[in-house]
Amino acid sequence: LRKMYGRYTQELGVYAKEEAARLRDGGGLRRVTSVRSRSAELLEYEKDPCAKCHVCTSRCQKFLISRVGEDWIFLILLGLVMALVSWVMDYAIAFCQQAQKWMYGGLDSNMLLQYLAWVTYPVVLITFSAGFTQILSPQAVGSGIPEMKTILRGVVLKEYLTFKTFVAKVIGLTCALGSGMPLGKEGPFVHVASLCAALLSKFLAALFGGLYKNELRNTEMLSAACAVGVGCCFAAPIGGVLFSIEVTSTFFAVRNYWRGFFAATFSAFIFRVLAVWNQDEETITALFKTRFRLDFPFDLQELPAFAILGIACGFGGALFVYLNRLIVECMRKQKTINKFLLRKRLVYPAMVTLIISTLTFPPGFGQFMAGQLTQHESLVALLDNRTWCRQGVAEEFDYISHSHAWKHPQVNVFITLILFIVMKFWMSAVATTMPVPCGAFMPVFLIGAAFGRLVGETMAIMFPDGIHADGSVYPIVPGGYAVVGAAALSGAVTHTVSTAVIVFELTGQISHILPVMIAVILANAVAQSLQPSLYDSIIRIKKLPYLPELGMGHHEKYNIRVEDIMVRDVRYITLSSSYREVQEVLMTGQLKTLALVESTDSMILLGSIERSQLQSLLSLQLGPTRRLDHLRRHAQDNGTHTHTLGAHTHLTSLDTMDSPPSPPCTHTHSYTSNSSNTSARHGVRFLVSVAEVILNPLSQIAEWEEQQLDEPVDFNNCKIDPAPFQLVERTSLHKTHTIFSLLGLDHAYVTSTGRLVGVVSLRELRKAIEGSVTVTGVKVRPPLASFRDSGNTTSVSEVTELHKLWNRHRGLSQTTFPPLNIATNNTHRERKQIRGIKERRERKEKGGSHFRLSGL
Amino acid sequence: LRKMYGRYTQELGVYAKEEAARLRDGGGLRRVTSVRSRSAELLEYEKDPCAKCHVCTSRCQKFLISRVGEDWIFLILLGLVMALVSWVMDYAIAFCQQAQKWMYGGLDSNMLLQYLAWVTYPVVLITFSAGFTQILSPQAVGSGIPEMKTILRGVVLKEYLTFKTFVAKVIGLTCALGSGMPLGKEGPFVHVASLCAALLSKFLAALFGGLYKNELRNTEMLSAACAVGVGCCFAAPIGGVLFSIEVTSTFFAVRNYWRGFFAATFSAFIFRVLAVWNQDEETITALFKTRFRLDFPFDLQELPAFAILGIACGFGGALFVYLNRLIVECMRKQKTINKFLLRKRLVYPAMVTLIISTLTFPPGFGQFMAGQLTQHESLVALLDNRTWCRQGVAEEFDYISHSHAWKHPQVNVFITLILFIVMKFWMSAVATTMPVPCGAFMPVFLIGAAFGRLVGETMAIMFPDGIHADGSVYPIVPGGYAVVGAAALSGAVTHTVSTAVIVFELTGQISHILPVMIAVILANAVAQSLQPSLYDSIIRIKKLPYLPELGMGHHEKYNIRVEDIMVRDVRYITLSSSYREVQEVLMTGQLKTLALVESTDSMILLGSIERSQLQSLLSLQLGPTRRLDHLRRHAQDNGTHTHTLGAHTHLTSLDTMDSPPSPPCTHTHSYTSNSSNTSARHGVRFLVSVAEVILNPLSQIAEWEEQQLDEPVDFNNCKIDPAPFQLVERTSLHKTHTIFSLLGLDHAYVTSTGRLVGVVSLRELRKAIEGSVTVTGVKVRPPLASFRDSGNTTSVSEVTELHKLWNRHRGLSQTTFPPLNIATNNTHRERKQIRGIKERRERKEKGGSHFRLSGL
Repeated sequence: LRKMYGRYTQELGVYAKEEAARLRDGGGLRRVTSVRSRSAELLEYEKDPCAKCHVCTSRCQKFLISRVGEDWIFLILLGLVMALVSWVMDYAIAFCQQAQKWMYGGLDSNMLLQYLAWVTYPVVLITFSAGFTQILSPQAVGSGIPEMKTILRGVVLKEYLTFKTFVAKVIGLTCALGSGMPLGKEGPFVHVASLCAALLSKFLAALFGGLYKNELRNTEMLSAACAVGVGCCFAAPIGGVLFSIEVTSTFFAVRNYWRGFFAATFSAFIFRVLAVWNQDEETITALFKTRFRLDFPFDLQELPAFAILGIACGFGGALFVYLNRLIVECMRKQKTINKFLLRKRLVYPAMVTLIISTLTFPPGFGQFMAGQLTQHESLVALLDNRTWCRQGVAEEFDYISHSHAWKHPQVNVFITLILFIVMKFWMSAVATTMPVPCGAFMPVFLIGAAFGRLVGETMAIMFPDGIHADGSVYPIVPGGYAVVGAAALSGAVTHTVSTAVIVFELTGQISHILPVMIAVILANAVAQSLQPSLYDSIIRIKKLPYLPELGMGHHEKYNIRVEDIMVRDVRYITLSSSYREVQEVLMTGQLKTLALVESTDSMILLGSIERSQLQSLLSLQLGPTRRLDHLRRHAQDNGTHTHTLGAHTHLTSLDTMDSPPSPPCTHTHSYTSNSSNTSARHGVRFLVSVAEVILNPLSQIAEWEEQQLDEPVDFNNCKIDPAPFQLVERTSLHKTHTIFSLLGLDHAYVTSTGRLVGVVSLRELRKAIEGSVTVTGVKVRPPLASFRDSGNTTSVSEVTELHKLWNRHRGLSQTTFPPLNIATNNTHRERKQIRGIKERRERKEKGGSHFRLSGL
Repeated sequence: LRKMYGRYTQELGVYAKEEAARLRDGGGLRRVTSVRSRSAELLEYEKDPCAKCHVCTSRCQKFLISRVGEDWIFLILLGLVMALVSWVMDYAIAFCQQAQKWMYGGLDSNMLLQYLAWVTYPVVLITFSAGFTQILSPQAVGSGIPEMKTILRGVVLKEYLTFKTFVAKVIGLTCALGSGMPLGKEGPFVHVASLCAALLSKFLAALFGGLYKNELRNTEMLSAACAVGVGCCFAAPIGGVLFSIEVTSTFFAVRNYWRGFFAATFSAFIFRVLAVWNQDEETITALFKTRFRLDFPFDLQELPAFAILGIACGFGGALFVYLNRLIVECMRKQKTINKFLLRKRLVYPAMVTLIISTLTFPPGFGQFMAGQLTQHESLVALLDNRTWCRQGVAEEFDYISHSHAWKHPQVNVFITLILFIVMKFWMSAVATTMPVPCGAFMPVFLIGAAFGRLVGETMAIMFPDGIHADGSVYPIVPGGYAVVGAAALSGAVTHTVSTAVIVFELTGQISHILPVMIAVILANAVAQSLQPSLYDSIIRIKKLPYLPELGMGHHEKYNIRVEDIMVRDVRYITLSSSYREVQEVLMTGQLKTLALVESTDSMILLGSIERSQLQSLLSLQLGPTRRLDHLRRHAQDNGTHTHTLGAHTHLTSLDTMDSPPSPPCTHTHSYTSNSSNTSARHGVRFLVSVAEVILNPLSQIAEWEEQQLDEPVDFNNCKIDPAPFQLVERTSLHKTHTIFSLLGLDHAYVTSTGRLVGVVSLRELRKAIEGSVTVTGVKVRPPLASFRDSGNTTSVSEVTELHKLWNRHRGLSQTTFPPLNIATNNTHRERKQIRGIKERRERKEKGGSHFRLSGL
């Protein structure tokens, strides 16, 4: 027995080598599965870099040399396109807002008409945006950063990087922002840039061959694209790069740093150059240029005030995230509301827009909260370096057109500011839940600036001549507080430090660097200990498959080990497994790959095999060719001449049925299409063949199948990953998390001296991380039971479907080979069912809240 | 046979579990080896987090909870200490320079005395610095960034993080900078901060228990420390964090981002607050504050000039790195110079200082290159926002005291600038090769600023009224060019983009963001394609063990696979190996760990065992206890009563001899010390026992040993790493590099369906990367043959020493058990030899150019 195992193993090794050689020489390799992951790229079955390009190796060689150039070209193109998109969109948005102002201004004779104009305009725009997005591509809804985070983690989110989504996102976003609702363009822009990069890759691949398809490279390009997105949205290249790193990555390859910098700089440059060429500006400067004094930007004794501002912003940020999630969850739980909203999808955004625009109606409540200003105008006013009020009385400040909006004849500037903050706070939280493409960064930034301005104005009243004791008078600059507040609040909501850099680039001044840094760090410390970041919160709401970050201080993870969380009941197959065992294993497990061990006794892990590979093995064993062979041989034995083609077609149709979810190999498919062609041509011959099929003893076929299932598996036609990732029982949770994040794994086998003892998947890890958070009694994050459950049910339902399919197939093949017309009907029905299941699955995946996690 | 293997494997598994349980309950685990690596932390034998702390688990629990707080406290302390060090050092340096000025100024009656004062002062300071560093800690020489890069890669550089080095570095650096030579404090400050972090960790560990000793945590802290170093040197927290990431990391954990930001901000804050408290400044502002106009910082049409400046800086940076390396290599190759310099170590720095200070003597040649200004003064003058010359005639600019230094009555400002650039360029390149603690960032920064100023002034002459066509006149700001040049040249030399952020923080203005970014990116692109970064260049010069980065465009790496570079002749042991085989394997291989396979037939990889483990197994088998047992049994058989203690002592001394380089287990050691105690007490009994020993037939002992060596190895007392990192034959070089960098590996086994087929170590990978660079014909980097060879020889010599030791031992044990006095003599001699070898090795390691790479 031992000998035999040895031989098998060696044979496998020899096979692997041969295949490797073949691949190398031949170049191409058909890759069957659509599942991908960074781990697949890094560790799993290693393929030719040209795996997908079907050009010859020598041509590849040439391309490889010119590849650097292509990198630059790609980044320049990406920057150019994004800058254009950003500029055109800004132009369109400004036009929309101007149109609203014009309508509103032209109707100042009649208050009612004015109100209707003020309200109808945004409602129409938002409704159109929601409807358009819903119809064209529901994936375009929302920020996009959570999805990019998940995609860069190595998970395939279908339909998130298509042209349809691009169109839906750009047009939807333009309309949404044009409506004047408190929405931002930064998050969606990250998504748009990634879409752009993906489409550009495809386009260049079509032009120059397959080199643009390398997936590792695509990931690098996607992370550069994220930087471009932020960079050209704020004209903030450095802040963009840092923000995108902080928001989307867990581990960052410094090697890719320059890509982001280059692309973001180029894009920010073009974006601003367009403004100059369009005569909007004289030269390239910051978007929200400030003019604070340089020689004495702030006094040392103001720092406590900045620190308090930072801490308050931390609480505010956490509250915003909580409020946002609360609204979504409320609407989900209230079944009547939920049902209503599901039926009438456009009612919710329309209602929200109606309420918000009613409240901001300038002659109405809007007069107390600067309702007539757009986000841009408000921000410019808030960052102004002049003090708005002094000695408690509102100062005259009519030099800038925007500022008078803050000054109300009856009401103090403080009241206006407080009302603005409170109203915008809940409005932004509600508005960002609308099903339109929108981000929350800019509204939060604005609220933060208003809050900072409030604190600054208070300080200015308390210390009218500044705090500085000796010599010259340096009055307090409330605009500086506004800058600090904006950075701190947006930093708290997104859990990033790089908002500090973004404000410097936005304002064009870095003089307040220390206050900004202190406030941002304090805000982050507070917010991170209370709530997840807005993006993580959305990831949970949307139930995207993502590994939660280990909390800042959850060092108890050092105490949990892999053996505590691993699944001990691993599904495996042995080298001597029969096809029947494979069939059984396939019907029970959930992981996308199965472990291959030497034998049940030794349990030595030899590698892992993808589920689809096994399925194709199985269908090959029971497939048409072999069945046909058998029939023919049988027929020859019986002396009857079986018509080859008919039986073939018949069996092929049976085979399509037993090829479950993802088609096991393209080979089968091409076969089917071929046979349907031929069947059309040779339709008449069918009757003959069918008659012959009926003549065959049915029981014999069943017997043959049983016999086939008992044969040991022939692994020669199967791709084996010979080095799946392994952990030891005593690996700590902390290290497991690090390794999973670093390599983008979705599961790892646990071995003990080469013996397979368990398996840990992303799911167990997630459970353990969440569980351990509750253990300490801190439990700041919701237990996310729904997240886990949904992950479960998806897999379970998939398994059930598979199970059914198999059962059906087995029952069918064992019981009967019906006459032709019934058989064709049956096959048609079967096909329909299969198509139905597929469609259902696709629909689910399109739904936004469902997904495919490679390896789970 | 098969059965037996199976049982063995299972036994090993059971053993591993038992040991795991034991460790978990017991807490402590004596770790024998001193080798560490991040891979050891991540993947190798997984230990208790409290492995090194000998407090009980419950206490640990308490500590774990308060650990976050400790993180903060640690970072605050680190920031505080570093800020104080930085400030005190700056103060001392300013004092030194003031003293020189005072001496120079006081002697203006006599030119010769003046010259002597001008020259003697720096020569004395530099000589003292060099001598002091040489005596106290030669590791303090140079920048420190290359060493930190290597340490963060997971390599242990001995003596680089000790208190001695700290003292040597701080005092040496202060003297070196006080001398006024063109040296920088930024690189050394990274080292000082890391030293500070390491010492603080030790100190806190002594105070609060062992939790500060976790090595993964130490790495996190060290990377934060690097950020602090740059941050408090330039008062540039953001730039500091980014620069330290770019310079020291390959893959960066975003999780650690906040640490760096927090510590660097705190430290920069304290650093600047100290200046305010000392009445040097009114409030916290930038170090080199500029006052460029905000509304129109530059014209769009100036951008080509900025781009050209960037490209020129790229070439300049590459030239600087090349020049620096050339000087070092020249001196090394010239044997006579080399010999002379090795004997008189202080002559070189003194000579260099003499030449440089002679050339900068203000009444001499120094008058044409602003020789009297310190670095700080020059930089302030260069970044000035006023134009120095207009219409070709030197403008009067006596408003700032420093600026008149640039204005020479006979000579144009352009000539002064050009002379300054050229002279400073080679002076800086030479000065940084002196054996004192010094960096090159600041001199390069200064040269860049001067070059930028030169370009700016030229532009100002070419376009006296600015380029802007319509409306108002915006004259060109040459100071802006100086900022751009400084960022570009320092970026080119260090291969970083974050110098852009550093200049913004240094100057307190971000208005030139686009020109700076464009120039820095272009400079990087040029410099990276011509030369390695200065730090990588030093790594090569110093022969530090570091994995070279894959070049930007070397995509041909996708074509090289592991099977092309792996070593096929792997040293392995099987489950059924005899001790003799282990002995043989130990004498031949070079890697620190050996593969354990199931059997020579199957070659299934079960795990890896550290060399030292095997050595201890071997010495256990042939060790005193068993030998004693054998003797006793033999004695009993012969009816003779052997005196236990004497034989024991004798054999123990033999055992110390065969325990090679690193002591295999602490057990043996304690044994030895015990026995020496007892031997003192029972000295008289020895004679009796020795007589008995001599009575024993010597041949019988040899026979016993032979017999022992033929026994199969008992792996029960041996720690096996059950999941060493595995690659597949077809893994590409690119991916291998990524994995090695990500996980800090030093070797990985190559398997094919579980079967061991090869091994790849850092060395092969390095060879492959360097080799592939030459393949394409680009070959921009030197082949580094010396680097590889030194790595080789170290290992070979170690093996040879081991070999000798073993041979000696074997010869000894086989031939004779001499009478007591000879035996003791012999043992003493042996011990001496061993000590000698150890000392030699330690000396080597101290020598700076030698090292221990874990796993190699």
